[in-house]
Amino acid sequence: MSERTCLSIILAAGEGTRMRSALPKVLHPIAGLPMVAHVLKAARSAGSGQLAVVVGHGADKVADEVKRASGDVETFVQAERLGTAHAVLAAREAIARGFDEILVMFGDTPLIEADALARARDGLADGAAVVVMGFRTDNPTGYGRLIEKNGHLTDIREERDCSDKERRITFCNGGLMAIDGRQALALLDAVGNDNAKGEFYLTDIVGIAHRQGLRVVATEVAFENVLGINNRAELAEAEAIWQARRRRKLMLEGVAMAAPETVFLSHDTEIGPDTTIEPQVIFGPGVRVAGGARIRGFSHIEGATVASGAEVGPFARLRPGAELAEGSKVGNFCEVKAADIGPGAKVNHLTYIGDATIGAEANIGAGTITCNYNGYTKDRTEIGRGTFVGSNSSLVAPVSIGDNAYIASGSVIVADVPADALAFGRAKQEVKEGRAPMLRERYRQEKERRLAAKRSAPASGE
Amino acid sequence: MSERTCLSIILAAGEGTRMRSALPKVLHPIAGLPMVAHVLKAARSAGSGQLAVVVGHGADKVADEVKRASGDVETFVQAERLGTAHAVLAAREAIARGFDEILVMFGDTPLIEADALARARDGLADGAAVVVMGFRTDNPTGYGRLIEKNGHLTDIREERDCSDKERRITFCNGGLMAIDGRQALALLDAVGNDNAKGEFYLTDIVGIAHRQGLRVVATEVAFENVLGINNRAELAEAEAIWQARRRRKLMLEGVAMAAPETVFLSHDTEIGPDTTIEPQVIFGPGVRVAGGARIRGFSHIEGATVASGAEVGPFARLRPGAELAEGSKVGNFCEVKAADIGPGAKVNHLTYIGDATIGAEANIGAGTITCNYNGYTKDRTEIGRGTFVGSNSSLVAPVSIGDNAYIASGSVIVADVPADALAFGRAKQEVKEGRAPMLRERYRQEKERRLAAKRSAPASGE
Amino acid sequence: MSERTCLSIILAAGEGTRMRSALPKVLHPIAGLPMVAHVLKAARSAGSGQLAVVVGHGADKVADEVKRASGDVETFVQAERLGTAHAVLAAREAIARGFDEILVMFGDTPLIEADALARARDGLADGAAVVVMGFRTDNPTGYGRLIEKNGHLTDIREERDCSDKERRITFCNGGLMAIDGRQALALLDAVGNDNAKGEFYLTDIVGIAHRQGLRVVATEVAFENVLGINNRAELAEAEAIWQARRRRKLMLEGVAMAAPETVFLSHDTEIGPDTTIEPQVIFGPGVRVAGGARIRGFSHIEGATVASGAEVGPFARLRPGAELAEGSKVGNFCEVKAADIGPGAKVNHLTYIGDATIGAEANIGAGTITCNYNGYTKDRTEIGRGTFVGSNSSLVAPVSIGDNAYIASGSVIVADVPADALAFGRAKQEVKEGRAPMLRERYRQEKERRLAAKRSAPASGE
Repeated sequence: MSERTCLSIILAAGEGTRMRSALPKVLHPIAGLPMVAHVLKAARSAGSGQLAVVVGHGADKVADEVKRASGDVETFVQAERLGTAHAVLAAREAIARGFDEILVMFGDTPLIEADALARARDGLADGAAVVVMGFRTDNPTGYGRLIEKNGHLTDIREERDCSDKERRITFCNGGLMAIDGRQALALLDAVGNDNAKGEFYLTDIVGIAHRQGLRVVATEVAFENVLGINNRAELAEAEAIWQARRRRKLMLEGVAMAAPETVFLSHDTEIGPDTTIEPQVIFGPGVRVAGGARIRGFSHIEGATVASGAEVGPFARLRPGAELAEGSKVGNFCEVKAADIGPGAKVNHLTYIGDATIGAEANIGAGTITCNYNGYTKDRTEIGRGTFVGSNSSLVAPVSIGDNAYIASGSVIVADVPADALAFGRAKQEVKEGRAPMLRERYRQEKERRLAAKRSAPASGE
Repeated sequence: MSERTCLSIILAAGEGTRMRSALPKVLHPIAGLPMVAHVLKAARSAGSGQLAVVVGHGADKVADEVKRASGDVETFVQAERLGTAHAVLAAREAIARGFDEILVMFGDTPLIEADALARARDGLADGAAVVVMGFRTDNPTGYGRLIEKNGHLTDIREERDCSDKERRITFCNGGLMAIDGRQALALLDAVGNDNAKGEFYLTDIVGIAHRQGLRVVATEVAFENVLGINNRAELAEAEAIWQARRRRKLMLEGVAMAAPETVFLSHDTEIGPDTTIEPQVIFGPGVRVAGGARIRGFSHIEGATVASGAEVGPFARLRPGAELAEGSKVGNFCEVKAADIGPGAKVNHLTYIGDATIGAEANIGAGTITCNYNGYTKDRTEIGRGTFVGSNSSLVAPVSIGDNAYIASGSVIVADVPADALAFGRAKQEVKEGRAPMLRERYRQEKERRLAAKRSAPASGE
Repeated sequence: MSERTCLSIILAAGEGTRMRSALPKVLHPIAGLPMVAHVLKAARSAGSGQLAVVVGHGADKVADEVKRASGDVETFVQAERLGTAHAVLAAREAIARGFDEILVMFGDTPLIEADALARARDGLADGAAVVVMGFRTDNPTGYGRLIEKNGHLTDIREERDCSDKERRITFCNGGLMAIDGRQALALLDAVGNDNAKGEFYLTDIVGIAHRQGLRVVATEVAFENVLGINNRAELAEAEAIWQARRRRKLMLEGVAMAAPETVFLSHDTEIGPDTTIEPQVIFGPGVRVAGGARIRGFSHIEGATVASGAEVGPFARLRPGAELAEGSKVGNFCEVKAADIGPGAKVNHLTYIGDATIGAEANIGAGTITCNYNGYTKDRTEIGRGTFVGSNSSLVAPVSIGDNAYIASGSVIVADVPADALAFGRAKQEVKEGRAPMLRERYRQEKERRLAAKRSAPASGE
C-alpha cells in the first residue's frame, strides 16, 4: 500500500429533508451500518491513514456515531451551508497539517469501494493535481459532463451550460475527488461563489487547476460507487446493491444459498464455506457461522455464534450471546439468548432458552421455558451433560440440573436437581367419567344466552 | 375537480377461463382487494360520481362483491356475450339518464390510475367526442395500432389489417375510453357486427365518430394502466407492480424498508413516517401503524393497530383487534388477537393473547397462554397495570388479575387474583435421586425390543 | 415417441473446484435434487431408454446418488481427465452395444429440457450424423461459434481461431450433442489431441463428420438449456430460473400466488388448482397439496399431504408424515410430524403434534405439546373425534384420549382418558394477598446488590 500520507474528508453535513426522518441522512443504515460508516470503512481500506468528517445538520448525533464507528476520526462543523468547497474547507485545520493526498467523499454515497479510491490515489501518485471519479451512463441527462482533451480533464460542465455536442458526452461527474495535498488549500481557496446560488462548488477546482497548468484527470468507476442517496427508495436500492455484492462474495467463497435474494446479511456477517443458507434468512449484527453449518429457512440471527455441523431453524431466533457448539441444534419456534448450547445438544421445538448453559448431548423437550426473569433480575439456568428435560417444563432460574438427570414432562422445576436424579413437579391426573357432555351443555347454553343478548345490542367482533 | 357529471362503466362480464378458477376473474385479488374494486376506486378518485358494473359470468358473486366494495354502484347484466360495445350498452339505462361524460373501463385492468382517467376526462372537456387511452411499446406485435392524422385519432387498426407502415406504429390501443355522454348512445348504437366473429366492438366508435366529423383523440398512459389480466401469472405481475408502486410511495413518505421487495402490503395498509419495516413482513387488510414504530422481520399483521414506539416481532402474528399502545412490544412466536396491549407492556416470547386486556407496563412471561375458548364461548382475560405473569402460565378465561399482581411461573390461574396478590397454581417439585439411570435403562430396553420386532416386519418411518 | 433406441451419456466427472465444496459439483442441488438427477430426468422424459453417467471426481458419491435417482443408470469411470471426447469414450462399452442414437449431456447443465433433447433426436431421425445444440446471444464473446454453410454445420470455431467476420456470429456452441449411434464410435475414435492442452475434444467430431461428407446440423435452444454451472452464484441463478419456470407452470394451472418470487418449490412439489399460496412459503421434498387449500405466509412444508379446504399457517411447519384432512387447520407456531389431522380438526396456536392421530373436529388448544419422546423411543398420542384439549396441556405418550373427551387447560395427561370423560391434571391455585409488593422488594434489592457488585468488576452483557 502507498507510503504517501492521505487525509479523507467525508462531507456529511446535509440535512436530507427528502428522507423524511428525524435521523440525519448519513446515519441511515445500509446492512445495519450507518451510510457514513461505510464510507469511512472504504477510506480506511484504501489506506487513508487520517479520516475527517464534516458535520452540520444533526452535528452531535453524526459526530457521536462517527466516533463510535472509528475512534480516531476527527469531526469538523460546517456552521453554514455554502457549498461543497466551503464544506471541505471546514476541515482546513486538518488539510493544513500537510498530507500527500486528500480524498473527498460524501457521507451519502455509501457504496464507494476501496478499489475505486485506490485508483484515484494512483492518479495523484502519477502526477495529477486533481483526480475526479467519473462514471459512464447511457442516459446522462441531469449529470455534469466531464470535458476531456488529450487525456486531461479540462472542465466539469453542468448540463444547462453544455453545447449540443457536450450534451452527448456520456462520461459524467461522480462528485468524489482526490486532490494533491500540497496544493489543496490553494485550489480550494481559489474557488469563488459568483454563481446563481452564491455557493462555493468543489467541482470548480477542476477548471482552476487546469488553467494553472496542473494535470487533472478523470478515473472511471462503476456508477454505484458514486450513487448518492436522497430518499428512502434510493436507500433501499443501495441496500439491494450492497446485499447482492456481499451474497455473491459469500457464494464464491463456498456458501450455498438457493435463493440469495431472500437472505439478508449484516455488514459484519461471517459465514464459512460449505455452510448452507436456506431461503428467507435474516442476519442481524455480530453473527459468525462456521463452515459446514446449516441455517434453515425463516431464521433470524443476531449476535450469535454457530459452530460447524450445527443446525439452526427453520423458524429459529438466535439473539446476542447465543453460542451453538458443534452438532447442536436449535429448531422451530425456539429462541436462544445469552446461552451456550453444548455439542450435540438439541433444542428442537417451541422453547425459550435465556441466560443458560445446556450441556453436551442434552435434550430439551418441546415447550420448555427457562424462567430467567422475575421482573427485576435475570438469573441463570444450568443444565448438565446428557440431561433430558421433558416437554412443557418450566425451569425457574436460578436453578441447576445435574448431568444425566431426567425431568418429567410438564414439570415446574424451582430447586436444583442433582446428577442422575429424576425430578417432577406436576399435578396428579384426575378423570371424571362422563362429565364432558355436561360441561359442553353448560358452555353451549352460555353461548346461546350470549347470542340472545347480542341480538338486542351491537356486538364487538371476534 | 371537474363539475361535469361522469358515469363510469366497468365491463366485468368475462369468464376468465385461463384463470382456471371457480372464482370469477374480476374477483381475483390484487393486494387483497378484488381487481374490479381497484377499478372502482380509481374511477371514484378520478371524480366519477356514478359507477356501473356490467356483469355476466358469475353475475351474482360479482354483483355482491361490487356492492360490498361500494354500496352505490349499479350493476347491469349482459346476458349474452356479443362484444364490448354490446357490453357497454347493457348499461343503456344509466347512459340514457344523461351524463356529461362516460368512462369505459375493464374489470380486469386493475392498475388503472385516477390520473390517467382524469386526463381522459380532460380530453372530453377540451371538446373531443371520444378519447382513447393508448400506450407506447417497443414491441407492438399483436396490439391494435392507433392511426393518427393531424393530432386526431382516425382509426384503431387491428394488426392483421395494418399496412407495413402502420405495423411500425408503436402507439397502441389500451382499450379504455372516455366518451362524450350526450353522444354516447348514438355512437354505440351505430356499431355493427359485420365482422368475422359477429361481435359489436367498442373500438369501432373511433372510426364512426371520426367519419361524423367529431373530434377523436388518443391520450398516452403508462402501459400498466391498461394491463389486462388473463391468467394467474399475469395477476402476479400486476400484484408486483401494485406492490412496487405502494412501497415506493411509503418510502418517499418516510417509511424505512431495507428490503421493500419482501414486504407485502394490503390495499389499505397505513404506515406513518420514520417507522422501520424489516425484511419479510406481510400486511393483511386493516392495518394501521403509526410513525416511529418498528416492525421486525417475519411478522404477519392483519386488522391490527400499532402505536408509535411500539415494536412488533420478529416472528409476531397480530390478528384483527390487536391494539398495541405506545412503547408496547409483541415479540417472537407471539400471537395477539382482539386484545389491547397497554403502554409499555411486554409480550415477548411464545405467547398467545386472545380476547384480553393487558395493562400498562405489565410483563407477560414466555409461554403464557390465555385460555379464551372452551369449545363454545370466547371469554376475556383482564390483566392489570404493572402485573407480572410468570412464564408458562395458563390464564383460564374469564379471569381477572389485578394491578401489580404477581403470578408465579408455570401456574394455571382459574380464579380472579386481586391487586398486589401473589398467585400460584403449580405442583410441588419432587426429586428421586439416582432414578434417572433406571428410567433410561427401561426406555432403552423398550427401544431394543421394538427394533428387534421391526427386523421381521417393514416399519413406518419416523 | 420415437421407436429408435437412444443412449444418453452424461458427463459428470469434473471436480468443480470453484464450487469450493467437499460435495462433487454435479451433486449440488437445484430445487432439492442433484444437478445430475435433473439431467437424467430430462433424458428420460425425452424418451432415452438407456442412461449412462461418466464419473470421475468423487466417483463413488456420484455413482451412489445416480443409482438412488434412477436404479437402472449405468456408471462408467473416467480415470484420467483427457477431454470431453475421452470422457464420452469411457462409456465405450455401452456405445458398442449399438443404439440408434446417442445423446451427450453434462451433469452441470441442469436446466436442459426434454423438448430440446427431443428436437436434437429429431435431427438424427432426419438423417444427420451429428446434431449440435446452439444458442443465440447478443454477446458471444468467449463462446465457440457455430460455422454454418447451406444449412450444414461445418465447424465449431473457438473465439481465438475466429476471423473478424466469424467473430460476429451470434449462434454459439451449447456443448450438448446428439450423435448417430451407428457412427459414434468411429467419429469419436477419429478425434485427436494435437492441441495446446493435449486433450480430446468432443467438438472436433463436427469437423470430422463434415469432412467425411456426413450431415451435421445445429439446432437452436434457449440459452438456459445449456447453461453450465461452475460456482455457487451460477448455481443460484440456475435455481432461480428453475423456480420461475415451475411457479409459472403452477400459476397457469390455476394455483394462486400473490408473490411467486417468494415461494420456493421442491423438484417434486404437487399443488392443485385454486389453491392459494401466500407470500413467503418454502416447500421441501415430498409435498402434495390438493386443489382448494390455503397455504398462508411463512409456512415451511416437507413431506406432508394437505387436503382440499385445509388451511396451513401462517408460521406453520409441517414435517414428513403430516397428513391434513379436508377442512383441517394447522395454524401459527405449530409443528406437525408423522401425524394425521382429521377432517375439520384445529391445531391453531403454539402446538407440537408428533406421532399422533387427531380425530375429526377435535380442537387442540394453544400451547399443547404431545410428549412423544422419552430420550429413547417415540410413542403415539391418539385423540378421538370431537375431543377438546385445553390450552397448555401436555399429553405424555403413549396415551389415548377418547372421542368427545374434554381435557382441562394446563393439564399433564399421563394416562388414557375414556370417551366423554373430563380429565385434568393441574395444581390447585393459591393466592397470597398483598404478597406481590414484598416479593418485588426482595427482587429489587437483589438487583441493586448485583449492580453494586458490577460497579467494581466488568460484567457480561445481557
